[in-house]
Amino acid sequence: MNAETMTAAFYRGNKTFAVEETQRAVPGAGEATIRVAYCGICGTDMHVFHGNMDARVGDNRVIGHEMSGVIDSVGDGVTGFTAGQKVVVRPLDPCGDCPACNAGHPHICHKLKFLGLDTHGAMQEFWTVPAHTLHVLPDDLRLDHAALIEPVAVACHDVRMSGLKEGEDVVVIGGGPIGLLVAMVARDAGGKVTISEVNEKRLAIAEKLGFETVNPIKADLVATITEKTGGKGADVVFEVSGTQPGVDAMTAVAATRGRIVMVAIHAKKPAVDMFQFFWRELQLIGARVYEPEDYEKAINVIASGGVDADTVITDVSPLADIQSAFESLDSSPDAMKSLIKVGDLS
Amino acid sequence: MNAETMTAAFYRGNKTFAVEETQRAVPGAGEATIRVAYCGICGTDMHVFHGNMDARVGDNRVIGHEMSGVIDSVGDGVTGFTAGQKVVVRPLDPCGDCPACNAGHPHICHKLKFLGLDTHGAMQEFWTVPAHTLHVLPDDLRLDHAALIEPVAVACHDVRMSGLKEGEDVVVIGGGPIGLLVAMVARDAGGKVTISEVNEKRLAIAEKLGFETVNPIKADLVATITEKTGGKGADVVFEVSGTQPGVDAMTAVAATRGRIVMVAIHAKKPAVDMFQFFWRELQLIGARVYEPEDYEKAINVIASGGVDADTVITDVSPLADIQSAFESLDSSPDAMKSLIKVGDLS
Ligand SMILES: [Zn+2]
Ligand SMILES: [Zn+2]
Ligand SMILES: [Zn+2]
Ligand SMILES: [Zn+2]
Repeated sequence: MNAETMTAAFYRGNKTFAVEETQRAVPGAGEATIRVAYCGICGTDMHVFHGNMDARVGDNRVIGHEMSGVIDSVGDGVTGFTAGQKVVVRPLDPCGDCPACNAGHPHICHKLKFLGLDTHGAMQEFWTVPAHTLHVLPDDLRLDHAALIEPVAVACHDVRMSGLKEGEDVVVIGGGPIGLLVAMVARDAGGKVTISEVNEKRLAIAEKLGFETVNPIKADLVATITEKTGGKGADVVFEVSGTQPGVDAMTAVAATRGRIVMVAIHAKKPAVDMFQFFWRELQLIGARVYEPEDYEKAINVIASGGVDADTVITDVSPLADIQSAFESLDSSPDAMKSLIKVGDLS
Repeated sequence: MNAETMTAAFYRGNKTFAVEETQRAVPGAGEATIRVAYCGICGTDMHVFHGNMDARVGDNRVIGHEMSGVIDSVGDGVTGFTAGQKVVVRPLDPCGDCPACNAGHPHICHKLKFLGLDTHGAMQEFWTVPAHTLHVLPDDLRLDHAALIEPVAVACHDVRMSGLKEGEDVVVIGGGPIGLLVAMVARDAGGKVTISEVNEKRLAIAEKLGFETVNPIKADLVATITEKTGGKGADVVFEVSGTQPGVDAMTAVAATRGRIVMVAIHAKKPAVDMFQFFWRELQLIGARVYEPEDYEKAINVIASGGVDADTVITDVSPLADIQSAFESLDSSPDAMKSLIKVGDLS
């Protein structure tokens, strides 16, 4: 690598990455260039790998958005950031003038550009991004742990949207990587959390993390929650499973006036017990990505150990091995979080 | 009628009422006896008439709960109420010690007694009720108009639960009696209301009441609302139709972060576009009956003319004619509200 080039991993379609030397971008006005330390592999990245998003990403895309790094340089007009600061990128670039942006919800902009899908992402040594996407980290935060901030921010958004109060009973339906992060953030906020999950390996991880669990195939989830809550039910439910049984359970376990957060992506329309919404005055709350305050919260949760980063990070591979990292994650459905070590900044 | 007897209408099963002289109850401790002026016929009362609720009401039940009247006498320990006051009854008697009651939501108590279904109701000259159910009316409020307070309180609860703010765009899906009351209360709260309804006679009533309407069989509802709102969609949607097309429309017309209030009773589980809840961060809010503040609001809305009571009340029959009143309402699906004039108090 010389001053003008760097190593980047290009998704070239057909489950293939090419790791190549390429030109470094220089930050333009309002931009910053980040030396990337780590970048996690997201479920969305696996969708790209499987070719499900070729129409969106094309066949020469640097993907990756769950990153950490250090500011290398900033462009004209960028204030408040300086080279050497540890940062993460909130990978959302809203249009600024659609009904969602105008209503103050730019994170769900109708023309949202997601960095690392609609633009090049963080699986490259130097990443140039709009400076408004940056969040500065505490100096002593480990950069591998910081690569969890993006998915933890999703969980912080879900929990904030639920209005969870200390001491409330929580059920998380689905104990995969996202469900476990939601569970940890909900516990950190004072919730009494039970995780419902059918996969025994995931249940074992959830128990290792200290959660009460139910396998709804083996035990009666509703009866368990009813008994645990003195007949009341769960004040807050997170539906993270994306399944019809999960949707059936979400209304069945909820307390009167319970809040159900829809975290999962349901590609098909499930049948939903609308009578129970009426009868118990339940609320359903859709939650997508994050807002700046969720990023600040996620930084605090990681820094304070509210999320057990060392248990969540199950694998770290160098950028040169990105192909095998995706292949091995693809064949281990019980893995939690794999990181790519993009640059040596530690 | 002498001092100890009165006329009452008993539902005896098989679409039959018997109007008979019967004993008057004396108010016990904590109770009040009301001379009933008017009592509206509710959709629930029609369900009773059709025999769908025999298991709950039995075959010797005085029904009716949409009433107005004047206090006749009060029992021991009742303070704040005196004979001669115009009143309405909020017909809910909660248990006081279930999870809903303990959480401060007694209106949706898990063991709720609904007066006029689980106990005798207002289709009798003198009705004895717990004094905690009474709301005093302004002296100059017409007692026929006051019989609309109960259904208007339902609409006030729905609108309050929606968090509707002045100037917001509202779509009411379903323009029957409940939908029109919701629309009137939403308009009174400053909402810009469009009613979606397929029945042409109901559409004509909605237009007579000054509402913009769409017949979604003849016009594209989503395109109409999109254009009317400058591409934004409806900030608040009330699903009052109880149909699958209504449930499809509720998510399709909602703005980003739109609130959808589930007013209808869906006996079957409809298919619901959960992806749209996630993608647009929609909220679904179940709403059932009313709380005391909804009754106070309904009294104000009726007193101020926010609901056009003379258009809503389409028929008034004496108690002696209750049988024919139910029969004729049964055969006129486009009727709005039929009242029974129970006693002569005007
Ligand atoms: Zn992600
Ligand atoms: Zn926008
Ligand atoms: Zn009613
Ligand atoms: Zn109760």
